[in-house]
Amino acid sequence: MNCEVVAVGTELLLGQIVDTNSSWIGEQLALAGIDCYLQTKVGDNWDRIATALRVALDRSDAVIVCGGLGPTQDDITRDVIAEVMGVPLEEDEEVVERLLEMFGSRGRSMPRNNLRQALVPVGATRIAQQPGTAPGLVCPIGDKVIFAVPGVPYEMQEMVTGTVIGELRRRAGDTGVIRSRTLRTWGHSESGIAEMLSDRLEELDRTGAATIAFLASGIEGLKVRVTAKAATAAEADAILAAEVAEVAHILADYVFSTDDETMEQVVIELLRERGLSLGLAESLTGGMISSRLAGVEGASGVLRGGVVSYASEVKFEVLGVPEGPVVTEEAAIAMAEGACRVLGSHVAIATTGVAGPGSLEGVAPGTAFLATTVGGVTEVGMVRFPGDRERVRQFCVITALDHLRRRLLAL
Amino acid sequence: MNCEVVAVGTELLLGQIVDTNSSWIGEQLALAGIDCYLQTKVGDNWDRIATALRVALDRSDAVIVCGGLGPTQDDITRDVIAEVMGVPLEEDEEVVERLLEMFGSRGRSMPRNNLRQALVPVGATRIAQQPGTAPGLVCPIGDKVIFAVPGVPYEMQEMVTGTVIGELRRRAGDTGVIRSRTLRTWGHSESGIAEMLSDRLEELDRTGAATIAFLASGIEGLKVRVTAKAATAAEADAILAAEVAEVAHILADYVFSTDDETMEQVVIELLRERGLSLGLAESLTGGMISSRLAGVEGASGVLRGGVVSYASEVKFEVLGVPEGPVVTEEAAIAMAEGACRVLGSHVAIATTGVAGPGSLEGVAPGTAFLATTVGGVTEVGMVRFPGDRERVRQFCVITALDHLRRRLLAL
Repeated sequence: MNCEVVAVGTELLLGQIVDTNSSWIGEQLALAGIDCYLQTKVGDNWDRIATALRVALDRSDAVIVCGGLGPTQDDITRDVIAEVMGVPLEEDEEVVERLLEMFGSRGRSMPRNNLRQALVPVGATRIAQQPGTAPGLVCPIGDKVIFAVPGVPYEMQEMVTGTVIGELRRRAGDTGVIRSRTLRTWGHSESGIAEMLSDRLEELDRTGAATIAFLASGIEGLKVRVTAKAATAAEADAILAAEVAEVAHILADYVFSTDDETMEQVVIELLRERGLSLGLAESLTGGMISSRLAGVEGASGVLRGGVVSYASEVKFEVLGVPEGPVVTEEAAIAMAEGACRVLGSHVAIATTGVAGPGSLEGVAPGTAFLATTVGGVTEVGMVRFPGDRERVRQFCVITALDHLRRRLLAL
Repeated sequence: MNCEVVAVGTELLLGQIVDTNSSWIGEQLALAGIDCYLQTKVGDNWDRIATALRVALDRSDAVIVCGGLGPTQDDITRDVIAEVMGVPLEEDEEVVERLLEMFGSRGRSMPRNNLRQALVPVGATRIAQQPGTAPGLVCPIGDKVIFAVPGVPYEMQEMVTGTVIGELRRRAGDTGVIRSRTLRTWGHSESGIAEMLSDRLEELDRTGAATIAFLASGIEGLKVRVTAKAATAAEADAILAAEVAEVAHILADYVFSTDDETMEQVVIELLRERGLSLGLAESLTGGMISSRLAGVEGASGVLRGGVVSYASEVKFEVLGVPEGPVVTEEAAIAMAEGACRVLGSHVAIATTGVAGPGSLEGVAPGTAFLATTVGGVTEVGMVRFPGDRERVRQFCVITALDHLRRRLLAL
């Protein structure tokens, strides 16, 4: 079974919007074991969409076409599909009802144009999920099929996850179930993590019970994805649970979270569980740690605040760092302890270093001192990161949060 | 003249990397007046790349193929192009020399594999720009042409700007010169800006001297792009300069910068010119203003630092805000004045508000009070932003910086 993706929209070709939908769909297809050999972007043009669909159907078993299902005159995907199917469009009464209801509940009358969204090619069926106004369509053509989904990412994702992938796997005669989870790690390189898992990878190569893939994701950590496939959901879940447990055991405290949970969410949750409040003293990272923590819903329960001590005098006067060089272990320690005192927090993180491009106080760019205070005890470490200013700052943020995470876990 | 884009790389289809290269190339083509009707992603597979190139050449005048020029065995773009051209590959001595030099200057010996990068299809010419190890290629096929460029964005961009676009326009018989500049604005909606420019837009529609396009870019501002085309560079530059001056005059102080300059760079430059230092007191924005300012090279000359006063007690105890409600004009004013005092800065920005999703102190999510202190005088404004937590925070950051910008300009 292979499936192409056709993304519709002139704005994609003009570079006004980057087509992230095709990438996301490609990832879902790969996870489901469905081959995707080609992805195409085409503008809002009848003939070119029709040709793109015909060519794609000709060489592949299925096509997912994304976008062009809106209510305006240049949203022509459903019309073009009807032409490719060789059938007329008919108004779907249920969709009309639904649209009238949606507009009514917002106290607005429905523009006439929106009725276009209720048109369905004869022989096509609607996708059950319909989070927005645009219905998705399953359009059989001979033994092949076109799926039409909206270009709005969350609407598209709900339909692809809820209907399209399952339908493709059913058509592939693939009655098995695929499950996957992602372990997020920090503190070790990709090759280091791969080496820790080498026995496990060999074992899985032999048994085929599950697969493991790596994905370096910057400030989001190094992701390890475990995928299991089995005849039933229960069986797949069981294999996955066992394999995830095994991998998590091997990687031990390099694993900081599972799936979508970020490092800052983990740290906030650990602080909440332990009833501890956090203060920050940031020089190198310039407020980025605070900013990321404050981005977590409910951060206010544990986050007292921070001092961005960019100028040396702010370190001395606000945080009480002894006058002298400020890119040192001693300065980082004094900053963390000053943060606890000034902000009235139980624990603290402090960062000082050189983001680059130049050196500072004779210290090379990319060098940072990261300190954490927990239970009155301050620990400090020196790290050196490659990369540009932004990359150095981001690596410092996740590394400093990871230091605190490890110390909180040890409490 | 129309030109397709083919992006090569299995990782693009699997969704491990989002294909931003095609979007960028599409934008450059549109700016140069070259039509781009289709963009395709294909994996590292010989037959499928060959078919994609043949199909694209069949229906278009030119093809830009991006990626697959690296030194490893799965980088096969140049081999496939040679097959499509019906010619053998030959080693380009100059490229070999260059590669040996590049490795030599880094004190490394060159892996044998890298010699693959010196292979050029007979009849193709090298693109002059070569910022990395991979040479780009201009490959004529009959009266059509394939351009091969690397997948590394900065290498690709240098070649497309330096050679590909010019060559396409030459082939199109388009001897004119296109120039464009972008004015970044803040403080008015897209429709508001369009209305201010409506007479100008009508005039340009009539004369065709230049075109104007709008692009909402979130925290980067609302961009207004002016494009001029003329027979010579001098003429195009003159038209562009006049039109940009006209548009800038109409939009007046909504314009905060030109081209790539960000709001935070503008603010830092204004502070530097005036010899003023800046301090921040951030609650709602949680350190994001500091973080963005600290991301600018040379920020340390003017940025004293900040207090992230997330908890109310930090506002009271560190910044000296009077005890009471903290999502008010009064609190914002006291925070800004506290920042000047505590951080020893000449000017300050303060933010307090409700990021959401819930209300706080009876204030609706999306509401923010933004204060600025300049020359001992504090001004405060209330704003209300739509959107989720992250969007509200980002809008506050650029709006607060814009408030300060306007006050510094008035000094």
